[in-house]
Amino acid sequence: MSMDAQPRFLKTEKRFFTFGEKGKGLVLESGAHFGPVTLAYETLGTLNKDKSNAVLICHALTGDSHVAGYYGEYEKKPGWWDTMVGPGKGIDTDRYFVICSNILGGCMGSSGPSSINPETGEPYALDFPLVTIGDMVNAQKKLVEFLGIERLHSVIGGSLGGMQALAWCYHYPDHVRSAVALATTLRHSALAIAFNEVARQAIVRDPNWDKGYYYSGEKPSMGLSVARMIGHITYLSDESMHQKFGRRLQGKDAFSFDFDTDFQVESYLRYQGAKFVDRFDANSLLYITKAADYFDLSRYADYQSALATLKKAATKFLVVSYTSDWLYPTYQSRDIVKVLKRNGLDVSFCEIEADCGHDAFLLPSDNLSGMITGFLSGLHGKGRG
Amino acid sequence: MSMDAQPRFLKTEKRFFTFGEKGKGLVLESGAHFGPVTLAYETLGTLNKDKSNAVLICHALTGDSHVAGYYGEYEKKPGWWDTMVGPGKGIDTDRYFVICSNILGGCMGSSGPSSINPETGEPYALDFPLVTIGDMVNAQKKLVEFLGIERLHSVIGGSLGGMQALAWCYHYPDHVRSAVALATTLRHSALAIAFNEVARQAIVRDPNWDKGYYYSGEKPSMGLSVARMIGHITYLSDESMHQKFGRRLQGKDAFSFDFDTDFQVESYLRYQGAKFVDRFDANSLLYITKAADYFDLSRYADYQSALATLKKAATKFLVVSYTSDWLYPTYQSRDIVKVLKRNGLDVSFCEIEADCGHDAFLLPSDNLSGMITGFLSGLHGKGRG
Repeated sequence: MSMDAQPRFLKTEKRFFTFGEKGKGLVLESGAHFGPVTLAYETLGTLNKDKSNAVLICHALTGDSHVAGYYGEYEKKPGWWDTMVGPGKGIDTDRYFVICSNILGGCMGSSGPSSINPETGEPYALDFPLVTIGDMVNAQKKLVEFLGIERLHSVIGGSLGGMQALAWCYHYPDHVRSAVALATTLRHSALAIAFNEVARQAIVRDPNWDKGYYYSGEKPSMGLSVARMIGHITYLSDESMHQKFGRRLQGKDAFSFDFDTDFQVESYLRYQGAKFVDRFDANSLLYITKAADYFDLSRYADYQSALATLKKAATKFLVVSYTSDWLYPTYQSRDIVKVLKRNGLDVSFCEIEADCGHDAFLLPSDNLSGMITGFLSGLHGKGRG
Repeated sequence: MSMDAQPRFLKTEKRFFTFGEKGKGLVLESGAHFGPVTLAYETLGTLNKDKSNAVLICHALTGDSHVAGYYGEYEKKPGWWDTMVGPGKGIDTDRYFVICSNILGGCMGSSGPSSINPETGEPYALDFPLVTIGDMVNAQKKLVEFLGIERLHSVIGGSLGGMQALAWCYHYPDHVRSAVALATTLRHSALAIAFNEVARQAIVRDPNWDKGYYYSGEKPSMGLSVARMIGHITYLSDESMHQKFGRRLQGKDAFSFDFDTDFQVESYLRYQGAKFVDRFDANSLLYITKAADYFDLSRYADYQSALATLKKAATKFLVVSYTSDWLYPTYQSRDIVKVLKRNGLDVSFCEIEADCGHDAFLLPSDNLSGMITGFLSGLHGKGRG
């Protein structure tokens, strides 16, 4: 422990990594060739001499590379998982070299539909190719190699980030010592696809969407905000909405008897929808939800051989679900555990009691922090690499 | 039993009942006066001499007055609850005089935003006043009086129809011998309000909605179809969507890697959305969802005295919930039962094991039919009236 009484200000910065010439960066799962590829990323902590302490954190649907700390003293809010990542925290940046990059297809600095197509000087829009979770992981692998890391100590993510963590193990079983998959699934369910499809339809039916080529005009903000409202409902739970809003009215004592906001929950959803359109690209939401819908690790022909390699490499897993998560319910986490155990892998599983629905994995939790700290520490000196 | 070997063809017809002069039909819960009021309705079976065999069926969100039988020999499909209502069926039209009317605010013949305002000769659009479940019930009471019925043998409904059944008991405790409330609630939850609000926002953000005055131009079909898709998800369940669709692709062997339909569940939702806009008015969906959101029987000051009157009248209740209904989950039905029992009322409660979600109450079920038959028969000769 440092005796320094000063609070430690974890400074970080947004960096960019670009690879691949025109059309040569990545061969996508669709068969398309795409390049150059840019990933926005940040790192926290220090890579040790033998490069064995790297932890890759994968963000969820609308996250970004800014996982923790501050870009500068005047940034108001730290990164999205600052409660988990930092000096002395669950993922301790005094021990681990933490990497987080914006996903391929995103809109926070990595290549995506809103990026400029170097061939035209205009945003790609729908000329951007469809990408999968596997493609996102393949791009991350290039970044990890660029950083000089042969094998990751761990890949960690929740929700769509958890899918990436699982996909890493499948695609690069020799390059991952462990994985932590929070509130996620082996394959996207019909219910989850249904919600994504309605969100997409809300966007593409907005006349401003203009078949995706809206960047020089009005944005499809109406559709995007409705899509976000739908998403928000699925991140909460019946119980958390009851506790948070119940039937409380918004700034009034009686019903308005018109179509203005009556209830707090309406006001909350409208606010979330309006806030989202300022920071997120509608096309990116289309691409990323589609990648999630396509996600099904068991569809790969060589799925079994990847599991065998993981066993040989003694890869360890921590799987966590939340009681009130109805988007990726506990039975889906149990399916992950079953598949891994059946194949002789070392899996720890925990279902955390929580009222707050799918979003629980993002909320501060000593329980989860302790579990991850223990899991990451327990790996030292075990397994290969 | 009739020895007639001919299948009995249950013929019915759509009728209209209008009451109240201009501005004098109903005093609405908002305080507004509204009239004239028209209700579209149908009746099945025969009213007995002492007018004690009348059963009022209340339809759900997007239903209509055509509850069972056929308008004519060439009608392809019978009414929406034909599996339950008819000669020898769960609600036996050989024994009961069945009434069903389209709700106030609807678009299937009763007064609603798409009806012609006699003052202007144009559809009311948003000049139509906001109505509550209580207002719908008050309008139905006028129809029941017009039919010469002092006391209903039973009021029966599921979902929004169940709210009406409960509201009948509150508003007219002396005029209801029994009530059957299926898959419903005493008060609309924050989660249910949230889904309705997103559906409404999908409509009002469609540029064709035009602040509600769209009747002479393009309809807000894009918004309405998205609203319907959202609704459809809430009527199903994770399990039923898994069984019905899983991750099956729609007419192809591989992913399309574009934004066309890949999965059957996407195709199903788009189809449901498209079909709905042909038969339903977007403004009616706004009005009816708002009425549902306002529904909370406990907010009435004289709630307790209504419960005392129901006890004096020995009103009986049958409450039914479904295990996989997450829109109005079983705990909400248990709340209805608790309130009624605490007030000394006779309540039968059943939770039916079903995978198919909220929609279960509309599906053919020998279990439910038997339960309702038994409940309605058990009332004879008991209680008052």
